[in-house]
Formats: sequence, C-alpha cells, structure tokens
Amino acid sequence: MKLGRMNHLGYAVPDIDAAITHYKEVMGASVVTEPFDMPEQGVKVCFVHTPGENGTEGTQVELLSPLSEASPVTGFLAKNPLGGQHHVCFEVPDIAEAREYFEGVGKRILGPTRIGAHGTPIFFVHPKDMMGMLTEIMETPKGAH
Amino acid sequence: MKLGRMNHLGYAVPDIDAAITHYKEVMGASVVTEPFDMPEQGVKVCFVHTPGENGTEGTQVELLSPLSEASPVTGFLAKNPLGGQHHVCFEVPDIAEAREYFEGVGKRILGPTRIGAHGTPIFFVHPKDMMGMLTEIMETPKGAH
Repeated sequence: MKLGRMNHLGYAVPDIDAAITHYKEVMGASVVTEPFDMPEQGVKVCFVHTPGENGTEGTQVELLSPLSEASPVTGFLAKNPLGGQHHVCFEVPDIAEAREYFEGVGKRILGPTRIGAHGTPIFFVHPKDMMGMLTEIMETPKGAH
Repeated sequence: MKLGRMNHLGYAVPDIDAAITHYKEVMGASVVTEPFDMPEQGVKVCFVHTPGENGTEGTQVELLSPLSEASPVTGFLAKNPLGGQHHVCFEVPDIAEAREYFEGVGKRILGPTRIGAHGTPIFFVHPKDMMGMLTEIMETPKGAH
C-alpha cells in the first residue's frame, strides 16, 4: 500500500445551500458542482474545488446533507449540529487490491464496494480501526491526474 | 477573497507515535516529518505528506497530540478519544489582508496572528462562523508552489 492522493474531505452540513453560499461568498470558491441526490447513501452531495500546486486540482471539500431522517448523516449532525468532518477520502489505483489489503491487515470494512459520488468504486473503513477517521478508499478515475 | 490551497487537515490523536506508525505502516505514507513541540499551542505536531496531482505536494495531514492536560487538544480528545479532525487549513497570499477580510465579513478570529507550525503567520477563525469547521488561515510560505 502506498498512500494516495487525498481526493476529498467529506463534510456534513445541515443546509447544503447555505454551505455552498459560504464557500462561494465567504471563502471565495470559484467552482462548486451542482448538488445531486445519492438516495442509496441517504445524502445530497456536491463538491467544492480547491486549487492544488502549480495549477493542479487540490483536495475537494465534499458537502453532504441528509436526504431524510433515516440518513446516516442525520445522526452525525445531531452530535455536530453546525456541521463537521464526516470522512476523509484517499485514492488507490485498484479498488479490489485495496480491499484485499485492508482486510488482510485486519481493518473492518463497512459494507460492500460500491460506486461513489465520483462514479468510481469506493468502500469505507471503520473509524475505530483508522485512528478515529472514517476513511473512504476510492479508485482513481481513469484518465485523472 | 479567493479560495486558496488546502494546506493541511489538522488531526488530533491521543498518541502521535501510534498515529505515525499507522500512517507509515498501514496507509503507506513515505514522508512523515519528525514530531516537534509547540509549547505555546500546547501540542506536539508532525506532518504526513500526501501526493498531489502530477508529482505536486498534496494536502498534508497534521497530527496533533496534547503536551499537557492544559492543552486545547486535551478537551477535544476527551470528546473524541480515538482521535478526530480538529481543524482545516487554507492558504492565503497575505495574512494581514486575510485577517482584515475575515474581520470585515464579521467572522470571529481566535487570538492574534502568530507563527504556525510551517513557520509562516496564521490565525484561526471560529467554527461557529465557519459551518462548524475550525479554520486555520495560513500565509503561503515564500517560494512554495
């Protein structure tokens, strides 16, 4: 395993439109994607682009808001009503190899490998096995970087 | 204000040596800086480098552990005993201009501008004014990027 690019910081917010306004108007973000629903995850999501070095794409902020009371983000926001970091996402070249690796080192994986918000396969590793950090592992989109 | 590079994700951990081992041995980080004490902040810190696009430097993970019971990180870890995201840091070209900007838009700044772990001036903005995210604003090191 070689540490990959930090693709995004998943950030739960109670009101995604207010958070988009904050990032655009206060923080000066120039690119924020249109929010879309991911009903199977129970969330509405969008991505705030941040600049990397030398004109590259930096780590994005993924804004997440709950689609319903049953959303996994609802419980998180009950504990963090203003919003807060929900997960961090690192890229890997091959999702199947990465899953085998994390299983091999005894890390608990949460659910099946599935298609994430960037359209590539992802899985989550349990925060209790990751220094308290809910960690998303995401296959790098083909053609990226 | 134009959104700058996400310099680092500040991550509080109860045991910095265990966290370094985790990042090196489980996550495969190849560069982790030597931990050093910042007694005026009450923390021991080190930086995990992550790769950006096209061979650039990515957003770092700053590991923070408390130097004493009086550390501001001690209270955070009492609520997040495994560890958790403490703050996020964005770069600006000029710290004095940025401070004036955040004050001008009514954001509460926590304490004076001071020298941060990267040796450049920084200040923190109150999470209650920043969608729940304790936000460090850091002047880009001269010659960087």
